[in-house]
Amino acid sequence: MISFKNDYSEGAHPKILEKLIEINMIQSEGYGYDEFTQKAYEVINEKLGVRNKKIRFLVGGTQTNLVVISHILKPYESVISADEGHINTHETGAIEATGHKVEVIVSKNGKITGKQIEKFLEENHDSEHNVFPKMVYISNPNELGVLYKKEELKNIKKVCEEKGLYLYLDGARLASAVTSKENDIKLNEYKDLVDVLYIGGTKCGALFGESIVFFNDFLGERFEYSIKQKGALLAKGRVLGIQFLELFKDDLYFKIGEHSNRMAKKLKEGFIRKGIDFFVDTETNQLFPILTNKLIEKLEKRYSFLDVKKLDENRRVVRFVTSWATKEENIDMFLEDLNRA
Amino acid sequence: MISFKNDYSEGAHPKILEKLIEINMIQSEGYGYDEFTQKAYEVINEKLGVRNKKIRFLVGGTQTNLVVISHILKPYESVISADEGHINTHETGAIEATGHKVEVIVSKNGKITGKQIEKFLEENHDSEHNVFPKMVYISNPNELGVLYKKEELKNIKKVCEEKGLYLYLDGARLASAVTSKENDIKLNEYKDLVDVLYIGGTKCGALFGESIVFFNDFLGERFEYSIKQKGALLAKGRVLGIQFLELFKDDLYFKIGEHSNRMAKKLKEGFIRKGIDFFVDTETNQLFPILTNKLIEKLEKRYSFLDVKKLDENRRVVRFVTSWATKEENIDMFLEDLNRA
Amino acid sequence: MISFKNDYSEGAHPKILEKLIEINMIQSEGYGYDEFTQKAYEVINEKLGVRNKKIRFLVGGTQTNLVVISHILKPYESVISADEGHINTHETGAIEATGHKVEVIVSKNGKITGKQIEKFLEENHDSEHNVFPKMVYISNPNELGVLYKKEELKNIKKVCEEKGLYLYLDGARLASAVTSKENDIKLNEYKDLVDVLYIGGTKCGALFGESIVFFNDFLGERFEYSIKQKGALLAKGRVLGIQFLELFKDDLYFKIGEHSNRMAKKLKEGFIRKGIDFFVDTETNQLFPILTNKLIEKLEKRYSFLDVKKLDENRRVVRFVTSWATKEENIDMFLEDLNRA
Amino acid sequence: MISFKNDYSEGAHPKILEKLIEINMIQSEGYGYDEFTQKAYEVINEKLGVRNKKIRFLVGGTQTNLVVISHILKPYESVISADEGHINTHETGAIEATGHKVEVIVSKNGKITGKQIEKFLEENHDSEHNVFPKMVYISNPNELGVLYKKEELKNIKKVCEEKGLYLYLDGARLASAVTSKENDIKLNEYKDLVDVLYIGGTKCGALFGESIVFFNDFLGERFEYSIKQKGALLAKGRVLGIQFLELFKDDLYFKIGEHSNRMAKKLKEGFIRKGIDFFVDTETNQLFPILTNKLIEKLEKRYSFLDVKKLDENRRVVRFVTSWATKEENIDMFLEDLNRA
Repeated sequence: MISFKNDYSEGAHPKILEKLIEINMIQSEGYGYDEFTQKAYEVINEKLGVRNKKIRFLVGGTQTNLVVISHILKPYESVISADEGHINTHETGAIEATGHKVEVIVSKNGKITGKQIEKFLEENHDSEHNVFPKMVYISNPNELGVLYKKEELKNIKKVCEEKGLYLYLDGARLASAVTSKENDIKLNEYKDLVDVLYIGGTKCGALFGESIVFFNDFLGERFEYSIKQKGALLAKGRVLGIQFLELFKDDLYFKIGEHSNRMAKKLKEGFIRKGIDFFVDTETNQLFPILTNKLIEKLEKRYSFLDVKKLDENRRVVRFVTSWATKEENIDMFLEDLNRA
Repeated sequence: MISFKNDYSEGAHPKILEKLIEINMIQSEGYGYDEFTQKAYEVINEKLGVRNKKIRFLVGGTQTNLVVISHILKPYESVISADEGHINTHETGAIEATGHKVEVIVSKNGKITGKQIEKFLEENHDSEHNVFPKMVYISNPNELGVLYKKEELKNIKKVCEEKGLYLYLDGARLASAVTSKENDIKLNEYKDLVDVLYIGGTKCGALFGESIVFFNDFLGERFEYSIKQKGALLAKGRVLGIQFLELFKDDLYFKIGEHSNRMAKKLKEGFIRKGIDFFVDTETNQLFPILTNKLIEKLEKRYSFLDVKKLDENRRVVRFVTSWATKEENIDMFLEDLNRA
Repeated sequence: MISFKNDYSEGAHPKILEKLIEINMIQSEGYGYDEFTQKAYEVINEKLGVRNKKIRFLVGGTQTNLVVISHILKPYESVISADEGHINTHETGAIEATGHKVEVIVSKNGKITGKQIEKFLEENHDSEHNVFPKMVYISNPNELGVLYKKEELKNIKKVCEEKGLYLYLDGARLASAVTSKENDIKLNEYKDLVDVLYIGGTKCGALFGESIVFFNDFLGERFEYSIKQKGALLAKGRVLGIQFLELFKDDLYFKIGEHSNRMAKKLKEGFIRKGIDFFVDTETNQLFPILTNKLIEKLEKRYSFLDVKKLDENRRVVRFVTSWATKEENIDMFLEDLNRA
Repeated sequence: MISFKNDYSEGAHPKILEKLIEINMIQSEGYGYDEFTQKAYEVINEKLGVRNKKIRFLVGGTQTNLVVISHILKPYESVISADEGHINTHETGAIEATGHKVEVIVSKNGKITGKQIEKFLEENHDSEHNVFPKMVYISNPNELGVLYKKEELKNIKKVCEEKGLYLYLDGARLASAVTSKENDIKLNEYKDLVDVLYIGGTKCGALFGESIVFFNDFLGERFEYSIKQKGALLAKGRVLGIQFLELFKDDLYFKIGEHSNRMAKKLKEGFIRKGIDFFVDTETNQLFPILTNKLIEKLEKRYSFLDVKKLDENRRVVRFVTSWATKEENIDMFLEDLNRA
């Protein structure tokens, strides 16, 4: 069985494991005060075109979202998200568990616009009987693998600034975003587009780990306390530091994104050749083809992929994901089997 | 510089890293539904002398404590802890952040007794104007490296049962406990002594990771939901599973504990020979010698260790910790330097 | 200016104030342990056709909802509500502030059906990545003044029982519900239809106060602790007890409901005679007529009412509410002015 | 039976009830936007020697404390309290339920000093592994009826300012404090001594109600949202406004305090004449005499009072409380009975 189910089916990029072994017996300070972590902060600052911005490493995505959002918001403040947003759909109410309402905007392809946010604020909030929206949460690529264009982000940021909201971008799969052919936002341009940036590791080649960057210094104050309080502080913090140091050495992060995207592209073209439609058009490492139940049955004998939802009696939307670990030979084999099916 | 500061200064036991590399490219299910994790559940069940008890792996200690405690308690229920308990002193109010009061019993050497708990309940609680104590939290070894005797645990358990409280044991350093010469509680005896057991990994040779065991089935129901909600679910869950599988293969966990204890013992004897007193007498991998400021100054040139507190104008309590990674040659070298000092 | 803005513009029904004065200098136990409160528990039990069901009095509606819901749900459990539900729209995220997600079903006229709940459960929940729905929240009459029929409630209850969910009914305006001509649910029939019932006082003639009834004994256990912890315990608890005692003496509660409904009916007929349409058809004490901007402007000179929303360029939905305090002469005067306008 | 159990055994000061009746049928805006409430804000501002400071009325003491503290603190911040502080002992973990640790200083007579706070901060806090203390909570008179002197408050305020902590004073029985013979702090001097002041109503003659004053404007921002979110917003907000308006008309609040204190004084002198000692010496409306079990038994036949704790085999500490409603004839009768006993 070959799995295209997600981008966390394997371990870590070999270079990361090598590095973990290399430093294994070196003694260092705990809780991220080690030299590797400190160096990683510097390197990422540089890659983002900023200096001395607060960066911290956390373990996983839901954790990152809940620590960031609960750190920033006051008790009566809410976060606005697309209906398809990860915090609204797949985090077991993690944000609400910290006391905050997730307010939802119905989205197209998982994306929301500045205009929608503006309209939402006008229609929904005017008094102490409602929560007070203070943050917008978006992901890039989003849950459906779709990218925001620079112009779209600028519009959202503009509305946020005018209305006094913070903009937080979840880049769990940012490697795939920044290396997509459709992408027009460079890594060092995010500093002007969002207040807080989450650079994903787990789904981009790390064993685990996510990096948070506070472009807005004020929001990052005492963030360490929130990390610890929410159980997100790793004793051997260097295990995170060394991974991000390695991911941003020799452009490994970008190479991982490029490989994932190239594999997805090849898969996509194969589906297209076969006349298969997509639920949503993506240029990142997630594909959402619409397959007949019959075809699914056949493919499932050798391949696993995620069932997303039923479209009609005969067809379902499924998800294929590629990663740093996807072997081109497996794509080739799959496409042959697809052709034969 | 050689560090005796803590038991998380290095990476992981080499066997663990080897295993991570070995399985790196194998594809498996996410979120702990992989074969390694499932196998680890079985193995640990066996080692504990139970069958089909719910076991789950989390990333770190504070996280484990907060997920377990918030999962079990109702909103108005509290957890009783020794004043020195980790949840009361070094977790940034993580338990309170989930809504629960930590109620404190003043302890001797960080240990509390069944009698103290009984007295506490009698004196403090009688109406809806007070929180409702429902859990006792203890650690073994505790924060000061001291062990509970089987009889002591039995007494605590008896009071808990009589009063309807759950007993939760934090074994962040359980490897050191179960292999200590002073210890009289076997791993497979905990099933009768506590309701929930936390078997530490991070401080016992793992890269990171803690294991929770619910001897009380009722308490473990839907624990997965709490894990995910609190941001403690690892996408690549197998990274935890494989580590615990390895730790409990060929008695590695016990060997790690034994080595740590042996190194600490050697260190302890060296201190004793030098006429140095201890703040508290321990037989585990933590030592709390009382050193003169002058001696501290000298030793700090080549060794690092934790400053615990000032005792008087000339002396301070410090902490030395050993681990799986402590090299005997470093102990020898230290003792020589100590002798010369 | 005459206000039809809401049913809490005046003080309390005179009989309640008289009673407060009558008992003013009598000394009694605090926190609801007084004789008036205890007697009120008995009387309400009787009116509901039950015995010894736990009843407690709280101060306001949002408070009642948050104390009840947070008392019953486990951390990872959610409550399902109509999109228009009070807990979803007008409580400043009070439920989320206690850690629970409010999951929303898009409703027709603010009502949801058993079928919708069933469908929602099928489509939305299957793993620890989602919250676990455990309660259904409905209000009767609902936010739009619309009533549930007995058959509709039975269907909801049936689904709840099959799926293991608790049913909680917010009756902030229950007096208007049980006395409406459209109503077919007697007060003593609720015991078979819901698990927890909230009998409103504030909007039904009390100075303030809401009554919670646990038909399901298990859910009410230690509810006093949650009341106190959430700041909802009145020191002079008897102020609540005496009010509910009075409300349920000589059918005052029903008389209040009848008067409110009769006044609303008269108002409704006046609007209809004038050819005015309604946004939603109601038979309780809330009316939602659709008025032209021009008419609104004229009426606002002498009357106040709530602006609900814009319908189109020329028309808006507004809300008129009647209560125990509404004077028939004011309705008459308003209708004359309406006719002239 | 005559009760000296507490100061909330009766209803409200007659003038308050009269006022409630007087305005009963007047229509006004809900949620505290009525003219009475607005007027009360003005009057209290004036009495405090300030202008336009934000004032809001809440229903009860625990509610007030939890809404204020959770509104002000960030998630990882704690509040420091005397061990005897109400928030630490009698609020069912209400503060912790909002996510915040209550950190405790062992007190003498329920009072803490600036020096103690300073020492506490030095010894306990230095990193993200601990909560971050940001507020000091004190009450005046405190739980044991003891008063702070102006100099003592100044010292606490000075330390708070130097260390960046907010000072919040719980004046649930402030009427008794400001009118005590021992008191040297005028109501209009609090503005320089604390950041947030809570002026008690429930225990000072109101039917219920507490007033919060933000001398620090920043802390009061959007406080309405927290009030509503925590279920503390009264629909008929004017019921609170009118009570405070009445309490601060014609010095009623002071008269209530004076009467309570005078009654307590008389009681105290009676105890002293009888040779009875006190657990703590107070000059407010609470007395803590040490009575023999035998005497308690005799007195309990006609009088009720609070049992505080056992002192030794023969003696207990009990509490007598006086209020606006205490009749001098009852004091006289009690003292006669005491003499005879």
